Order: sequence, then structure tokens, then C-alpha cells
Amino acid sequence: MIIVMQKGATSRQISHVIARVEQLGRQVHLSEGEERTVIGVLGEGRPLDEEQFGRIEGVEQIVPIVSPFKLASRDFRPQDTLVALNGIKAGGKRVVIIAGPCAVENREQLLETAYAVKEAGATVLRGGAFKPRTSPYSFQGLGFEGLKLLAEAREATGLLVVTEVISPETVPLVSTYADILQVGARNMQNYALLHAVGEAHKPVILKRGMMCTMKELLMSAEYILSHGNDRLILCERGIRTFEPYTRNTLDINAVPMLQELTHLPVFVDPSHGTGKWSLVGPIARAALAAGADGLMIEVHPNPEEALSDGVQSLKLERFARLMGELRAVAGAVGRSI
Amino acid sequence: MIIVMQKGATSRQISHVIARVEQLGRQVHLSEGEERTVIGVLGEGRPLDEEQFGRIEGVEQIVPIVSPFKLASRDFRPQDTLVALNGIKAGGKRVVIIAGPCAVENREQLLETAYAVKEAGATVLRGGAFKPRTSPYSFQGLGFEGLKLLAEAREATGLLVVTEVISPETVPLVSTYADILQVGARNMQNYALLHAVGEAHKPVILKRGMMCTMKELLMSAEYILSHGNDRLILCERGIRTFEPYTRNTLDINAVPMLQELTHLPVFVDPSHGTGKWSLVGPIARAALAAGADGLMIEVHPNPEEALSDGVQSLKLERFARLMGELRAVAGAVGRSI
Amino acid sequence: MIIVMQKGATSRQISHVIARVEQLGRQVHLSEGEERTVIGVLGEGRPLDEEQFGRIEGVEQIVPIVSPFKLASRDFRPQDTLVALNGIKAGGKRVVIIAGPCAVENREQLLETAYAVKEAGATVLRGGAFKPRTSPYSFQGLGFEGLKLLAEAREATGLLVVTEVISPETVPLVSTYADILQVGARNMQNYALLHAVGEAHKPVILKRGMMCTMKELLMSAEYILSHGNDRLILCERGIRTFEPYTRNTLDINAVPMLQELTHLPVFVDPSHGTGKWSLVGPIARAALAAGADGLMIEVHPNPEEALSDGVQSLKLERFARLMGELRAVAGAVGRSI
Amino acid sequence: MIIVMQKGATSRQISHVIARVEQLGRQVHLSEGEERTVIGVLGEGRPLDEEQFGRIEGVEQIVPIVSPFKLASRDFRPQDTLVALNGIKAGGKRVVIIAGPCAVENREQLLETAYAVKEAGATVLRGGAFKPRTSPYSFQGLGFEGLKLLAEAREATGLLVVTEVISPETVPLVSTYADILQVGARNMQNYALLHAVGEAHKPVILKRGMMCTMKELLMSAEYILSHGNDRLILCERGIRTFEPYTRNTLDINAVPMLQELTHLPVFVDPSHGTGKWSLVGPIARAALAAGADGLMIEVHPNPEEALSDGVQSLKLERFARLMGELRAVAGAVGRSI
Repeated sequence: MIIVMQKGATSRQISHVIARVEQLGRQVHLSEGEERTVIGVLGEGRPLDEEQFGRIEGVEQIVPIVSPFKLASRDFRPQDTLVALNGIKAGGKRVVIIAGPCAVENREQLLETAYAVKEAGATVLRGGAFKPRTSPYSFQGLGFEGLKLLAEAREATGLLVVTEVISPETVPLVSTYADILQVGARNMQNYALLHAVGEAHKPVILKRGMMCTMKELLMSAEYILSHGNDRLILCERGIRTFEPYTRNTLDINAVPMLQELTHLPVFVDPSHGTGKWSLVGPIARAALAAGADGLMIEVHPNPEEALSDGVQSLKLERFARLMGELRAVAGAVGRSI
Repeated sequence: MIIVMQKGATSRQISHVIARVEQLGRQVHLSEGEERTVIGVLGEGRPLDEEQFGRIEGVEQIVPIVSPFKLASRDFRPQDTLVALNGIKAGGKRVVIIAGPCAVENREQLLETAYAVKEAGATVLRGGAFKPRTSPYSFQGLGFEGLKLLAEAREATGLLVVTEVISPETVPLVSTYADILQVGARNMQNYALLHAVGEAHKPVILKRGMMCTMKELLMSAEYILSHGNDRLILCERGIRTFEPYTRNTLDINAVPMLQELTHLPVFVDPSHGTGKWSLVGPIARAALAAGADGLMIEVHPNPEEALSDGVQSLKLERFARLMGELRAVAGAVGRSI
Repeated sequence: MIIVMQKGATSRQISHVIARVEQLGRQVHLSEGEERTVIGVLGEGRPLDEEQFGRIEGVEQIVPIVSPFKLASRDFRPQDTLVALNGIKAGGKRVVIIAGPCAVENREQLLETAYAVKEAGATVLRGGAFKPRTSPYSFQGLGFEGLKLLAEAREATGLLVVTEVISPETVPLVSTYADILQVGARNMQNYALLHAVGEAHKPVILKRGMMCTMKELLMSAEYILSHGNDRLILCERGIRTFEPYTRNTLDINAVPMLQELTHLPVFVDPSHGTGKWSLVGPIARAALAAGADGLMIEVHPNPEEALSDGVQSLKLERFARLMGELRAVAGAVGRSI
Repeated sequence: MIIVMQKGATSRQISHVIARVEQLGRQVHLSEGEERTVIGVLGEGRPLDEEQFGRIEGVEQIVPIVSPFKLASRDFRPQDTLVALNGIKAGGKRVVIIAGPCAVENREQLLETAYAVKEAGATVLRGGAFKPRTSPYSFQGLGFEGLKLLAEAREATGLLVVTEVISPETVPLVSTYADILQVGARNMQNYALLHAVGEAHKPVILKRGMMCTMKELLMSAEYILSHGNDRLILCERGIRTFEPYTRNTLDINAVPMLQELTHLPVFVDPSHGTGKWSLVGPIARAALAAGADGLMIEVHPNPEEALSDGVQSLKLERFARLMGELRAVAGAVGRSI
């Protein structure tokens, strides 16, 4: 941590800051510049509270030197983490393709989709049983019934199953049915939920909040990791910007940027990231070319009838065709599907 | 709802849309324009699913005519809602001032603050017992102990008490100690929590998420109202923008804009809305001048030592001085404190 | 400037950085921390190029200590700048009210407005002669004819006149007709234009770009100041955010924040800042309460017929009524109109 | 255009709107809904002024049906426009690679770069002679001298040359030296400049402003097209968001979205779009995979010494290696380089 004092800070203020640093068992290193005094904080120990130092009188700015996330950082663990999902390993050479409907609607819809995406080459089936919806008047998911259908689809197809948890109480129940727990974008900073999945014994996909920075995503990852669960995958799914033509702006920069910052696998959801089915193909290809470790794609046998987010869902044939394109792009960047 | 067909939509596509509208018991009204056909949907009943129509082939755009929130809308209830908080009525001529520390830290801190803000003219004491924090390594609040201290401060001073609920399970417990429940910005779209406070028998302050539109705030209000709780207050607390000098950008436009859209009282939190104590005074004055029905201000006897958000907290004397300024501004716009 | 080296930077990389700093006549101050080495740069002279140092191998981060704007900064000039506009002084106790139509449309419209705003208490008349418009098919202003009408309105009413310059070539012409030059939001980073108004002999109002930070606004101010024109007023007029209910989000925080950072007067334009006439009154009051030194308000005798931005214009009577409200708020914060 | 009247609009207000529509030679089509009356406007002619109708009393909302840009729209011209750049055709199967330094600094730097990028397979050389810079204290470009060096590099290598125009007066001069004119992001809404390049006899690359929507980009394209220049290429170069880890957020969605909306070629600048050289490679690959018709990449023989934007420039060898990767990705999506 570096503490920059205000121009004109008094020597009494400077001494006060130094005393507080030393009180916490650290040493200071003083630079008296042309206009401002700068205090470097040295020595080992747990991170000091930057905010608290920021409010001491005479302090202008605190510059963090050590990253605020430890367990999620490449500083802490330089090599890539491979997250085992039964036979598959997320973060390795093989790209993981997750596909399925936004919401589980009924047995036919789910099984038809499951067989089709399996056939096309996906390895994980997605489908929401508990749906967080902006409007209290929208379809809220089948709940427990949906979980049972997902388990049935797994038995039938051999696909793994991922579904969303929306509150701490649902974590144990969902864990008994699903192979992977998903924390949705709106819950990225629901700390009670992060705590609960941190203690679960299932891999977790943590989606970036639509107006959360990468740093905040990594801080939320830190919550999960620090509660003991290190089978964690991050997922970029679009951020909110001023652009209205697309529902969200897929932050493609986040793929290589996160991979510099963290050892965790990084997936991309081009369906929510665009909100428009006609853009899903190009953006899925772009995500692979940028180095994404996996994709999460919404697929529906009849998007027009979908109870949730059909406007961004691919039809079954279109998904199968896209898989061909994705194989070509994966090959071009040294990956496989 | 108005359905705009694509340029070149076929008459088969148009007939298909019309058939679906009529199937749902509505009538259509067809306009064939120079380039596009436009289908107006008429007749009473529950709102049609706009998204679902948006995905029918040949449809370019859906234009909602009726607002998606009913109970929260002025269309539904033109006169202002007054929310009774014991003797006080939020939404009336008298502005409600809520003040107190970000987090309850200990008995002395809370009582000293409570007496001071009471003396200065506040009517509600704020203080977090359960704290949602970005980092797992930051202070997470005193929990149950904090609730008991808040209740003690109420007994001692006669102030009402507001504190945050962070998960559905904490709602009953918090309701037995606090007079008003607060749903924090990060939980504005935590639907399980909205459901729980919608069934609670306490007034609720719902803070706007830093990444949420006014429409989404009103949709979240709709969740609470539709579960039966109509003692609801909205609170603008700053949104996230590209501007880094301030922690958030207080959306002052939201005060009069929300008051046009809804009958619910609108409060402002200038402390989180700026993130900087030196801006709190000017922005608190601005909020009153814009017509805010209440203010929520962070006050701490010793901000430098605060365990949370001290950088935006006012000292006790400064708050007392600000109250004088606020009385003058309230008077200038026909309100009182 | 502080140079933070990467974790694991080699001693050869560190020596290289030190050598470059010393080559430029500065001294270094070395702190070797637990994880990273930090190099403080000391000594006087013109600012080093931070970006250039940022690209040296082994460098992680550059922390600027001295603000990048000198002439605009309060560090450089602690006392408020008063900008003389004939008899009036912007930045003093008396608030400056600028009012008038978005665009000059014809003689009748302009004179009727000028007499009305003068009568209501405004001291400056606004009106666009050259209009930057998003669409090539919209009304682009009366040009030279508009300037002559503005001059005529000044003669008739005694109001000062402000109008926009949209390219360097128009600066001399506009300067012979107008009392104050306005640089519009879309031109805030049109450096050729900033250069030209920096050499003009007229006061300038520089509007903040709708997606420019306060720092960028102050850098653009620096362009004007460094070319010799110090009669400069800044104007907040709303920034672009994700919120669609209002055309822009008025950044009310910018008023006190800019006043901390700079000695220049800060005005507010509630008309563009909201884009909706019904919000103009509340936001104008809020701006004064936050400490704005002036307001710029769109007024039109018949907004429905306005050729530009009528949706945010006040009718003449409504403006007169608002002036009464503004006088009350100004009084409450120790200012006058 | 569809005009939605407010709930409770009077029949006098409705008649008034109808009268105004008919006055302009159009027909109306009336739908009286459960809550609101909706007026459809029919008939051919030049677009009505939506904003003007939006301010008529009793009107709640105007819904545009026809896109506000005509010449740039696919509605107007369904087939792709191929922009001839000497032998090459932008918008065709072959992807155009533009490479070179941010700024022309001297003869050696420019020629070394030109030979290297030619050798690696680029077909156009970029290099700024006139540089718009945020700070008045930064390097502003070599000006005329830079243009002559660019022309010399063209003679030497056979590469085409693109450089930025920053004001209308510079357009004729730059046109005599460069093969392609670039309008930079900060000038995307400098309408005087758009007018000037619209009348120039050179192809134009129009960069999206970092604060501008796709619709605004297409409106600016419309300015150029409507002044007669249809050799126009659009370029996505990153937008401003709340994310601080990257300088801009490259809007990858804009590539397929713009290609749906317009017939013009769409290029991507991954250097400005990320602001960080280590991200340029992955994002360049992503842009091709998403369907970009060209790339614009900053390359410098010694980025550490670059006078402008070196932090996002690739070294010569790294660029050559990237070209290999780009060929593989282009092949995977049916394009070539």
C-alpha cells in the first residue's frame, strides 16, 4: 500500500499516519516529493484496510499494490486451474460446450433439447428450474419439478447438468440433483449465496453481474474460494452499457484480461451477452477465438413458444450447424471441442 | 401492445400474428404503412407476454403501451401514498431525516450517534447489523448483537430504527427489532428477499441498485406490493457510471422522474450517492430542492475509525450544521423538517 | 509519479527504470516491499510522460501524484476565479441565469423570448445560430442570420448574448456578434476548436461532453487556459448512462466535486441534463442548492413548434414562475439572483 | 410513425394531433385501446419530425417505424457495399489488414514499420500526422512533415496509406497525400468535418465515438453518404463503460449487429478497443471470427519509446506472428487475408 498525502499536509498529519502504520506492525518508507509526501508501507501480514487509511486527515489517495483478491489471483497460483466436471476438465485444451433452454418448461421440451445438443456435441445441459425474473408476473420456473426433469435428462443422455441456485436454502436441494451449480448475474454479489455455494461439494459457475467490474467478479470468486470450494468457473455474459440495439454488451476483452488476472477457467454466454439469436453464432465464434474455455448457449426446440428468453435462443438445427463452425474456429486456435 | 412487422413480412406471417392475438381473446387493429404493417392489440385482460410476441417470425419490434408495473404506477393510483412510520408520514409535507452509522460497531458508538442525530432533528436512526461487503475479508457486521443495540438506542432516544435485511431468513428476526426494513442496492433484484419483505408487517425502504434502471426499481417495488406490503419507500443512492472521481453518480433526475411515474415516496441517500463526505452536504441540499421526501445520511462520531464506509460519513457536529442548512432549503421549497 | 514494478520484476528491469528516471534529471526513491518494488520519482521539472514509463518492461502500474491539469487546478490557484461578463461576475455571490431558445428560429420568436426572460430576471440570452445535429436531415440553424438576430435582441433588451461555435473558422465571426462563446458537449474534445477559443478575446462556456469524465473536462479547460484565455466557465449538462427514462443523467455530484478541483465557475444546464421540460424546474432548484454558479435554461414561446429540442423547453410563463422558486432556493443557500 | 396518446388524453388533443398529421399530407389510422389511443401515420413523403410531434400536448410517446438513416440502411440497399481501395475491395471475402504506428514520429520509425507490416501481409499503412490528444502538453503530431513521410513510405513499399483528418481545412491537404481519410472517434459527431469528407474524393474510415451508439454512428455515416461520398467504412474501436481494467470495452456485438443494419463494411481496431498490447492478439482473432471485414492494428518498432499510445502497440515480430494466427482464424470462417 502506498499512501499519498495531500499537498500541504502538515508534519503532524504525516506523523500520525506513520504511527498508525507502525502500530499495525509494518514499516514505512518515506518519500518527500516536490509537492507531496508519499508513504510506502512495507512488511508482511494480512492486508491493511485501505479504506480506513483513506479517511485519515491529510491523506489524499491510497494506492493498493497487492491485489485485493488472493486466492483467485495468478500471483497466488500461476498455473491454470483445471476444474474437473466428471470426465471433462474445464480450463484445458478441450472447450466445454453447455447448451439447453433458458428455463425447463416440460418433459418433452427438455428431453428433445437434451438429445439434440448431445448429438451436436455439447457435454453439459443447462436449464433453469428456479428463475429470477424482473417482473413478478413472469414465469418463475418449475422449481423442484424442474430439477427432477433435469436429472431425468441426465440419465437419458449422459450429459452433465447445470442449473441456477437463487437463495442459500436451495443449495442443498439443487446439489442433490445437479452436477454444477450456477450463480446468476443478478446474484453475483448475494454474499449469503456465495457463502453457501462456497461450502457446497459441487463445481460452481459464477456469472459476472451485468454492471460489475472484473475486480468485483474476482472478489466474489474470492468469497467462494475462501469458503473452501475451488472448483470454480467464471462466466462473462455481457455488461450493461448505453448501447440500446443489443440487450447487453458482451465484454470480449474480459476473456483474455481475466485469464491474465486469474488461474480460473473463463466461459462466455453469447446468448445473454447479446440478447438476440442472430448474433449468438458470430459472438460464440469470437469468444472461442479470444480464448474462452467454454460456452453457454441457449437452445430451444421452438423459441417462439419459449416461456423465457426465447428471443436469444437458437433452434436445434441452427445449434447443430453452429457446432460445426465452432469446431473450425477451435481448431484454428489450437483447441478442440 | 403494438406489433411492428418487418419490412417485407409476408401476409402469411401477418396472419399468423393476428391469429395468435385473437386466440388470446384480444382484437387487432391493422395499419398497412408505406413500408411496414403495424398491428395494434386491443381489448381488456391480463398483459400479453411482449417478449413472446417479439420472437414470432416476421416481427420487428414490440411497443408496450401499458406500463409493466401496475400497483406502483400513478396510472393505477394517482394520489401520493403516505407511508406511516409511527407518528411521521413519509411522502407528506414534512421531510424524513434518517441518520446514523453505516454499521453498528458497538454500544458507545451507536448511542453517542443516536443522541446526537436526535438532538439535531433526525427522526430515524440507521445502522447496519448485517453488512453485505465486496470483500470476504472486510467486517461483516455484528449481526444479532447489532439488532439488540439498535433496539436499545430506540428505547433510549425515541428514534425509529431502520436496518438492512440481507436474506429471506433474516426478515422475521429483523422485523422484531427494527421499525423499518431496508433492502440494499445489491439486493434490489434478489427476488426471494423481495418476496419475504412483501409478506412482512413492517414498512420497507427499497434502494435502487447501482446498475438498475428506474423501470427495474419499479418492477422490484411491484414484487413487494404484489405480496401485500404497501408501506413502501423508494430510495435513490447513486448509479454506476464511467466517472471515477465519485464512487457513484447520484441520479438527481430520478427524484422528480420517479415522482411522475409512481405514487410512492422517494428518498435520497447522498452518502452512498457520492461516496465522499465533502459532497454529502451539497447533494443533500440538492435532493431536498429537487423534491425528495426524505434523506438517509451516514453519520459517525469518528469516521476515521469507522469499520465501514467512513470516508462518506459526516462527523456529529457537521451533521448538526447540515441540518440547519437543510431546514433553510426545505423552507424554500415549501417543506419542513 | 510512483512506478510500481511487477511481482517478480528482475533487478535488471528495475535498474533500467531507475536509469531512465535519472537520465531525465530526476531522483528516485526505492521501496522494496514484500511482493513488489516501488520507485518514487522526486525532483522538479516538467511532468514526465506517464504513459511512456508505463510501457517499460517489468512496470506494472504508474501512479500519478501531481494532477495532469495545472492551470485549471485549485492546487495552482486556490481562490475562486470570477469571470467578468460586463457588469456581472460569474463565480461570485450572484447566480447567473442564462435563458433562451435552443435555436434562433426567427426574429419574433427570439425577441419575444428575450423580452420575457429579461423581465423574469435572466441576464444572458442563449440561442443557437449554428446547430450541431445528429441527423443531416434536421434543422441546422440560421447561421449568420441568427447571429444578427441575437445582436439585435441584445440591443433591444440589454441582455448579454451567448451562442455556440462549432468550428475554428466560425470563432472570429461569432466573436464579433456574441458576448460569450459556447463550446458544446459534442465539441468538448475538438482540440482545433479549443485552440481557437483559447485565442479569442471573449469569455467561454465549455460544456462537459456527455461521456467525458470531469478530469477530461478539466484537461479541455487546460487547452483553453494554456492558449491564453482565462475567462472560462465550465458547464455540467448531463452524462450518458444506462438509464433510458431521461435523455441524459445530470451529474449533480459534478457541481461540488468540480468546485473542489478547480477555481473556475461551474454552471448547470438542467434542460439538456434531463431532456424533459417537466424535470427542468426541480433540477434547476437542485443545481442551485448544490452550489452552481449559474444556470442555462431553454425557454421557448411555443415549445410545440420549436425547430430543435422543444421537448425540454419551458414556456415563458413557466420560466417566470421558476425564477421565483429559484430566488427562494438561492436565498436559502446564501446566494442571490 | 406511431403516436401513442397519454392515458386520459382529451378528444380535443387527439383531434389536434390528427389535424397536424393531415396538414402534412399524411393519413392517420386510429386505434382506441383499453387505456390509450394510438395514432398510426400512413402515406409516403419525407420523414416527419418525431421530436416535434413528441411535444404536442397529450402525446405520451412516439414510436419510429422507419429507420432514421436511409442511405446507410440495408432497407435501402440490401446487398453489401464493396469499397474499392485500389486493387483491394473492403467488404469482400478478403479481410483488409491496416497496420502501423499510432503517430508518425520520424522517417526511420515509419519506414522500418512499413517494410515490416508489408512483409507480414498488411495492405494498408496507418500513421497519424495530426494527433488529437487529451492533454495540451502531449505530442500533437508532425503535421505536414508526417504526411510527406507517409507518402514516401507508400512509394517505398506499395502499401496504401490511411491517416486522420482533424478539421475541415485539413481535408484537401491530407487528400493529396493519403489514400484513405480517417475520421477519429472524438470527431465522429464533428459535423463540419463529416461534411468535408463527404465532399472529398477519397475513401473514408469513420470510427465509432467511444460514447456513441450504433445508431449515432449510422447517422454520422448518413452525413457522409448524403454529401456524396459512398466509399465509406465503419470502424468499431471500443466504447466507454464502467470497467477500469481495460481502457475501452471493445463492443464485439457491434460487428454482426452493424452488418445486419447496414451494407457498409465494418472494421475493428483492437488496439484502441483494449488499450493493452497483450489483449490485442486475442481480440483481433475474435473480431475476425465475429465477421469483421478488416482490422486496424497499432505496430511500433519500439513501443517503449513511442510518442503516443505505445502501451497498446505490438512489436514488429509479434505482429508478424499474429498475422499467422489471423490467417488461421480467417480460414476457419471462410475468409482470407
